[in-house]
Amino acid sequence: PREGWKKGGQMLSVLLSVNVLLLASTLISSGAFNKVAVYDTDVFALLTTMMLLTIIWILFYIFRTSRLPDAVPYLDSHAGPIWLQGGLILFGVCTLVMDVFKTGYYSSFYECQSTIKILYPIIQAIFVIVQTYFLWVSAKDCVHAHLDLTRCGLMFTLTTNLAIWMAAVVDESVHHEHSHTASSTYALLTSDEQAGSTVEEACPCNTTFCQVFEQGYFYLYPFNIEYSLFASTMVYVMWKNVERLIGPSHDHGHGHSHTPTFASLFRETFFIGPVLGLLIFVVGLGIFIIYEVQVSGDTSGTHQALVLYYSFNIACLGLMTLVSLGGSIIYRFDQRTMDQHKNPTRTLDVALLMGAALGQYAISYYSIVAVVGGTPRDLLGGLDLSYSLLMIAQHIFQNVFIIESLHRSPPVIHGNSPNEPIHGLTYANRDALQTLPDYPSTPGLVDSTPAGPQEAVTIISAPQKNWRSKCLKDISLFLLLCNVILWVMPAFGARPQFNNNLELDFYGYSLWAAIVNICLPFGIFYRMHAVSSLLEVYVLS
Amino acid sequence: PREGWKKGGQMLSVLLSVNVLLLASTLISSGAFNKVAVYDTDVFALLTTMMLLTIIWILFYIFRTSRLPDAVPYLDSHAGPIWLQGGLILFGVCTLVMDVFKTGYYSSFYECQSTIKILYPIIQAIFVIVQTYFLWVSAKDCVHAHLDLTRCGLMFTLTTNLAIWMAAVVDESVHHEHSHTASSTYALLTSDEQAGSTVEEACPCNTTFCQVFEQGYFYLYPFNIEYSLFASTMVYVMWKNVERLIGPSHDHGHGHSHTPTFASLFRETFFIGPVLGLLIFVVGLGIFIIYEVQVSGDTSGTHQALVLYYSFNIACLGLMTLVSLGGSIIYRFDQRTMDQHKNPTRTLDVALLMGAALGQYAISYYSIVAVVGGTPRDLLGGLDLSYSLLMIAQHIFQNVFIIESLHRSPPVIHGNSPNEPIHGLTYANRDALQTLPDYPSTPGLVDSTPAGPQEAVTIISAPQKNWRSKCLKDISLFLLLCNVILWVMPAFGARPQFNNNLELDFYGYSLWAAIVNICLPFGIFYRMHAVSSLLEVYVLS
Repeated sequence: PREGWKKGGQMLSVLLSVNVLLLASTLISSGAFNKVAVYDTDVFALLTTMMLLTIIWILFYIFRTSRLPDAVPYLDSHAGPIWLQGGLILFGVCTLVMDVFKTGYYSSFYECQSTIKILYPIIQAIFVIVQTYFLWVSAKDCVHAHLDLTRCGLMFTLTTNLAIWMAAVVDESVHHEHSHTASSTYALLTSDEQAGSTVEEACPCNTTFCQVFEQGYFYLYPFNIEYSLFASTMVYVMWKNVERLIGPSHDHGHGHSHTPTFASLFRETFFIGPVLGLLIFVVGLGIFIIYEVQVSGDTSGTHQALVLYYSFNIACLGLMTLVSLGGSIIYRFDQRTMDQHKNPTRTLDVALLMGAALGQYAISYYSIVAVVGGTPRDLLGGLDLSYSLLMIAQHIFQNVFIIESLHRSPPVIHGNSPNEPIHGLTYANRDALQTLPDYPSTPGLVDSTPAGPQEAVTIISAPQKNWRSKCLKDISLFLLLCNVILWVMPAFGARPQFNNNLELDFYGYSLWAAIVNICLPFGIFYRMHAVSSLLEVYVLS
Repeated sequence: PREGWKKGGQMLSVLLSVNVLLLASTLISSGAFNKVAVYDTDVFALLTTMMLLTIIWILFYIFRTSRLPDAVPYLDSHAGPIWLQGGLILFGVCTLVMDVFKTGYYSSFYECQSTIKILYPIIQAIFVIVQTYFLWVSAKDCVHAHLDLTRCGLMFTLTTNLAIWMAAVVDESVHHEHSHTASSTYALLTSDEQAGSTVEEACPCNTTFCQVFEQGYFYLYPFNIEYSLFASTMVYVMWKNVERLIGPSHDHGHGHSHTPTFASLFRETFFIGPVLGLLIFVVGLGIFIIYEVQVSGDTSGTHQALVLYYSFNIACLGLMTLVSLGGSIIYRFDQRTMDQHKNPTRTLDVALLMGAALGQYAISYYSIVAVVGGTPRDLLGGLDLSYSLLMIAQHIFQNVFIIESLHRSPPVIHGNSPNEPIHGLTYANRDALQTLPDYPSTPGLVDSTPAGPQEAVTIISAPQKNWRSKCLKDISLFLLLCNVILWVMPAFGARPQFNNNLELDFYGYSLWAAIVNICLPFGIFYRMHAVSSLLEVYVLS
């Protein structure tokens, strides 16, 4: 009864994880409301304890698996691909910088802060180093030793990462809210502000160093958030792979070793996709800077900045929708077989893409209801409506394109899998062969043609295949660059949802802030995840 | 590429469903906040349209599958078991009664209501009748015709049911909130109340008939909520079964035809479980009535009523935890193999049990934080803390017990699967046989013993097996009855969370009301679903 016990072991670790996660989220959400008598030191203490426990478990795991010779008999070749590993290290380094800033910020008024606030970033730095090393070394492991302990340990690591992610998202939202209430006329959260100001009065952040540190660590938050999510997905795949048996047939090289280089970029694309994408990226960056400058100034420039922002986004989203649709149409003519193998990494990727898109969908639907139901119908309302509708369409078509791409088998080198060209050629060749005597003229399909015709197939179908593959590579690169700029804008603080006042007037500040602050982190994560998936599509095409 | 296309078809229907559902939930949640300019007539119009479309699709489906001879080549024997079907009809009938009440209520002030409010319950009644017939006839179908259309139709039906469920939950929460603000001193939602009272002033509900109708339809809401969820689970299983191929090996009678009768109750249990369960049920009902009477009166009796309520719940939950734990221990000695077959119904059951428990977990963790973090530590705080902790423990152990039960293969009639008794007997018999000449004295296990010893095995192991099975049946019946009373209390309006003022003072009214109103419906659904799962455990044991 192997499978049965597998589910039992998974169930126990899931129960552990769910309960710890709920406790953490209760504390974090209670701590976010200043009215409530839960202080952020409680949250910091809980998170620090969880990170310490995780570090101990990781060290134990590394020590044990190095001792036991048959603890890891199989490696999952799909798990921990190079772009995930690379992203993890990049975001890990940024998180370390953030931790330095945070330690500096809290050290600036050491005398009136509790020790845990300075301890927290230091422990987090150690945690990030240990965990990144651990995932670099063992992300592909299919563990077969200490099953229950390993499952619980991995689930606990996952829970720790998710708790850190939640804490970071909540902290960032509270920060945005503070800066919003400070700069605008909305003063609904007066009790919140008062509580914050009493702390600030006792320990003012006056020195230049302190203010630089504070600014710096809030700009680095998006990287910390992404680090936690990247680590979570990799740990989840490891957890799924515990006790997994992989046959040798599953391991026939899926082209994963074929990493994209700059030279191959010239050879393998039409060069339109990357150029157009880069153009949009640069224009978008410019518009983002103009927008931020205009909005943070006086209110006279806000309307113009919003029109500019929405126009660029509508153009970009429209193009992306059309291009994704084009990609899906190309697949309609593609005869490659679908990959049927069990693949936890891909299943998770698809689930995350579909799930994370829900956040952006929700914001868009609320916007649509607000614009349609609201009374003043002006230019900004129309732009907002088109933007929301196109956002939904773009997510749908991009998801369809990516999911279809990930399920294709990698291209076969010798053309024996596509049916269509073989048929055509078989007929053509038979005409030639029928001039020879003794050839049977049965009008049917020749299944196992000898070597001669098959070589001809390769020569004939190769350019067509190449053309299609080049097109797909162009599409994926274009979409990738567009997703990067659409990630940069909200991740670094563009919030047109709060500046255009349409939804704000319709729903009221507290309700609309709750909707955006809960849903937008998922939308940002979607962009990030789409980038990594599109990189995979580029390699596989 | 069958599987690949299957996923593609599923993806399209999921995308359709997600978008419609998000639109509906946006409108419903906007409509719930009276400040927002979305009126409930918009919500009613959307739901009515969705129900009409679903009715049309169902009629089309029934018509088409009756014409096409090979549209449904297989039936899934696990789908739509008898208790789900029975529950669906029971709740369907209650929903019809509710619709009559609702039509009567809205007809009472016909002149100043829009027509859609009277049309809505009438259409809902037709919808319930058509859908119940549809699920009664075709819940087991594995459809193989019009794949994409069927998938989209089923997903749309699912979406309609979920939207009705959401609307009912929101409507009930708003009603509870109104009666709460009317009866207590909390008047935070003044704007909400004012908007409600202006409508009521124009069209007063003065007649006795009208008031009876209003009271009646709010008491029947829990059944409507359960009806939607039952229908949703059955439709989801149908959707999973579209294009499924079932081999003949999967269909070896899983004992599902063995429905429990009253006579078999006497034969198959020790009779302790049902008696103890009934006792708790009756006592609980009495305490529930006392609680409701005391709380709705003046505030002097509230404290006493709460102590009574919490004491009963602590006793009941403690017993249930111990009994579930006992059941899991019995399984440790059970040598039955685990059932490995793919079974969408069971997978969904397990996911729903684990998922619905999250609602109660969340409430409990928030209570724990409030009690531990709050300052006044009195008797009520201690009771609340024990209640919350036991609630979490009970959910965990009951889930473990139910999930383990559902994964067991049904008992084998002739004792050839348990290893233990056979071994013991083989040795015993060999001693006897060794007195005979020419018997080889190899000290090993005899695998295929002749007919004689095997009959002896059946006789010897039968009472032990019977004892274990009886014990499990007692446990499942006891848990079932306890779950029924724990369902009745919150479903019919017991809200100790709002009466004990502990969490209310800690979190403030609006936050705590949001937490409870979002999470409690899942908790109530959990009880309902646990009852149906425990009935299945009873039959399978």
